[in-house]
Amino acid sequence: MLAFELLKTDGRARRGRLTLNHGVVETPVFMPVGTYGTVKGVMPSALEVMGAEIILGNTFHLWMRPGLDVLGKFGGLHRFENWRRPILTDSGGFQVWSLGEMRKISEEGVRFASPVNGDKLFLTPEVSMQIQTVLNSDVVMQFDECTPYETKGEVTSERDARTSMELSLRWARRSRDEFARLGNPNALFGIVQGGMYESLREASLASLVELDLAGYAIGGVSVGEPKDEMLRIMAHTPHRLPERKPRYLMGVGTPEDLVEGVAQGVDMFDCVMPTRNARNGHLFTRFGDLRLRNARFRDDERPIDESCRCPTCAGFSRAYLHHLDRCGEMLGPMLNSIHNLHFYVNLMREIRAALDEDRFEGWRTQFRADRARGV
Amino acid sequence: MLAFELLKTDGRARRGRLTLNHGVVETPVFMPVGTYGTVKGVMPSALEVMGAEIILGNTFHLWMRPGLDVLGKFGGLHRFENWRRPILTDSGGFQVWSLGEMRKISEEGVRFASPVNGDKLFLTPEVSMQIQTVLNSDVVMQFDECTPYETKGEVTSERDARTSMELSLRWARRSRDEFARLGNPNALFGIVQGGMYESLREASLASLVELDLAGYAIGGVSVGEPKDEMLRIMAHTPHRLPERKPRYLMGVGTPEDLVEGVAQGVDMFDCVMPTRNARNGHLFTRFGDLRLRNARFRDDERPIDESCRCPTCAGFSRAYLHHLDRCGEMLGPMLNSIHNLHFYVNLMREIRAALDEDRFEGWRTQFRADRARGV
Repeated sequence: MLAFELLKTDGRARRGRLTLNHGVVETPVFMPVGTYGTVKGVMPSALEVMGAEIILGNTFHLWMRPGLDVLGKFGGLHRFENWRRPILTDSGGFQVWSLGEMRKISEEGVRFASPVNGDKLFLTPEVSMQIQTVLNSDVVMQFDECTPYETKGEVTSERDARTSMELSLRWARRSRDEFARLGNPNALFGIVQGGMYESLREASLASLVELDLAGYAIGGVSVGEPKDEMLRIMAHTPHRLPERKPRYLMGVGTPEDLVEGVAQGVDMFDCVMPTRNARNGHLFTRFGDLRLRNARFRDDERPIDESCRCPTCAGFSRAYLHHLDRCGEMLGPMLNSIHNLHFYVNLMREIRAALDEDRFEGWRTQFRADRARGV
Repeated sequence: MLAFELLKTDGRARRGRLTLNHGVVETPVFMPVGTYGTVKGVMPSALEVMGAEIILGNTFHLWMRPGLDVLGKFGGLHRFENWRRPILTDSGGFQVWSLGEMRKISEEGVRFASPVNGDKLFLTPEVSMQIQTVLNSDVVMQFDECTPYETKGEVTSERDARTSMELSLRWARRSRDEFARLGNPNALFGIVQGGMYESLREASLASLVELDLAGYAIGGVSVGEPKDEMLRIMAHTPHRLPERKPRYLMGVGTPEDLVEGVAQGVDMFDCVMPTRNARNGHLFTRFGDLRLRNARFRDDERPIDESCRCPTCAGFSRAYLHHLDRCGEMLGPMLNSIHNLHFYVNLMREIRAALDEDRFEGWRTQFRADRARGV
C-alpha cells in the first residue's frame, strides 16, 4: 500500500513521489502540523488550496482527546477532521518523553499520568501501533525514545545515548511486529536515533534497515542542540539511508534548514514553526522575516510579500495585519498562518520545480540572496 | 446616492431593496458586526459566500485603532478590511456612553480618556461625522446619547428620558449639518430615542422625520430592559416610521426577536449574538439552540443542523466541534461563527423569500414550531 519512486537526484538532493492510501505526495514535501486534529487556525479547505499534500497528527494528543472510542466511531482521523489527503502520525514517544518528571520509562514502555484528567496510563510500542491503527494514518511512526541533547545539564554521554538508541531499536522491532499483527494497511517508518554521535547514528541506521521498513526518519534533532550540531547530523545521516525509501527529518525547521535538508537528501519535513510563529506575528517572506508588531508597518499598504500568491497577500496589507495583531483579533493569526504555511508549502514546490529542471543549485543561490535582502 | 424601494408589504412586514454606494442590499437584512474592521474569526470571503450583503464597523473602536491617519491612507474602511460590499458604521455614541464613569457628557459632546492610551478625547456630533466620512461607510449613523433603561438602580424617569432624547435630537441636527458640510456622499440615518416611553418615542420620531434623513433607526433597546419592555417598544415604534425610508432596529437580537422585528416593520438588524455565542459554543439551529459543551455531543456524528447548507455543517460533526471547543482550538470559534452567521443571514433570506411569495405568516408559524422541536 506504499510506493516511493525516486524520480531524479542532484547530488544528494532527491525528487520523489510517495503513494499512500489517501493519495500521492510529491517530495521533497513540508507537512503542516495538526496536533489535535486541526492545523491551528486553518481550515482544511485552505490547506488544500495552498497545495498541502500531507499533514501531521499527534498520536499522544488524540489519544487523550477526543479519545479512541470517538476516533474509532469515525473510522479514523480523516473523516473526523475532514481531511481527505494523507496523514502522518507520530508515535506519542516524543510527547510522553516531554512530560519530564511526570513519566517513568522502562523496557516495557512509558508510564505516566494523563495531563488531561490524571488517569494512570501506559504507552508501549504495541499500544502506539494500536492507536495509530485506529487513527488510520497513512504513515505510522515507530514508538521510540527521544535521546535528549543534554542530561542533567551536561551533553548526553555516548554511553547514555547508546543505551537510549538501543532501547529505541528494540521498540522498533516490537512496533514492526505489532503493526504486522494488526494488519495495518499503511506504511510504518523507523526512526534513527543516536544523539550527536555519528557512530551511534550509523549503528541505529544499520539495524533499522535490517527491519526493511517502508521509510526512515531522523529523530532526536531540533531538541535544543546548537545549530552547528544539528547541521552536522543533517550532513551525516540522511544520505546514508536506503536510496529507495522515503527519508523524513523530524521537527525541522527554518526555511534555511529545509533547503539544507533537501540538499542533504531529506524528502519529508514537519515543523510547528510556520503556524506558531504566525500566531506571534513572525512572518516568513522571500526577502527575509518580518515582525508584524514593528511600528513601521502601522500604515504600510503593501502585502506581507509582494512575490507571494497566498490569499492573505492577495487581499490584505501589512497595516491591516499589524492592526489585527494589536487588537488581538482572531483574524490575525488566521491570515498569518495561511501566509506562513503557504510560504513553506510553496518553498517546497519551488524546490521540486528546480530539481525537475536540473537547476537546484542555482535556485539555492538565489534563495540565499533573496532571503538576505531584507523585507 | 441612496435609494430605498419598498417592494412588498404583508401587514407591517416589509420586503425592500436598499441601494448604497457599494452595492444593493435586499431587506429585511441582518448585518454581521465587525467592530475593529473584522467580523471576529471570519474571513471576508466567507461572509460573501454565506450571502452577507452589508456589515457593521464601530466608529469609536476604529478611531482608537488603527486611527484616522491609517484609515484615511486606505481611502476608508473598505479597502483596509478587504470588504467590497456596503458597510454601516455606528456613531461612537453608544461606546463612549458605555465607558460609564470614564466619560463626561455635556451639550457640546462627550469628553473621555482613551481606553487604549489614556489620551483625553472629545467626541461630538461634528467629530463623529468627520470620522465616519473618513471611514467612507455607506450608512452613517447620527451621534446620539443612548438613554439607559435604569439610572442609579431605578428605571429611568420620563423626565430624564425626555432630557436625553432632546439632547439626541439637537445632536441629530448638528450631525445632519456637519454631514452636509463635509459633502459626505453616503446615507445618514437618524436614531429614535425616548426610552420606554411611547410618547417620547413619538416626539423623537416626529422631530427626526422633519430632518428628512435617509433612514431611521430605533436606539435604546436591548440595553438591559426586560424582554416584554423591548417587545412593547418594538410593537410601538417601527411602523410609525416613514414608509419610504429604511428602518433599522439597533443591537437586536435572538432569531425570535428578528422574526418579531420583521413582523413589526423593521428592515435592518445587527447583533453580536451570532459571533459572540459561537465563541462560547452556543449554536443556533432551525430546531432550537445547541450547547456544544454538552457531553452528549462527544461522539455525535451529525452536523450541527441537518437542514443547514453552511460549510461547517457540510464538513464537520458535532463531535469534532465539541472536541475543538474542549481543546481550545481556534478552528472551533472559526467554524462555529460561520455556522451562526450563516444561520442569521439565511433566516433573513428565508423571510425575504416568504414575503416575496406571500407566505410570511405560514413561514412564521413553521419557524416557531421548528425552533420549539429541540435539537
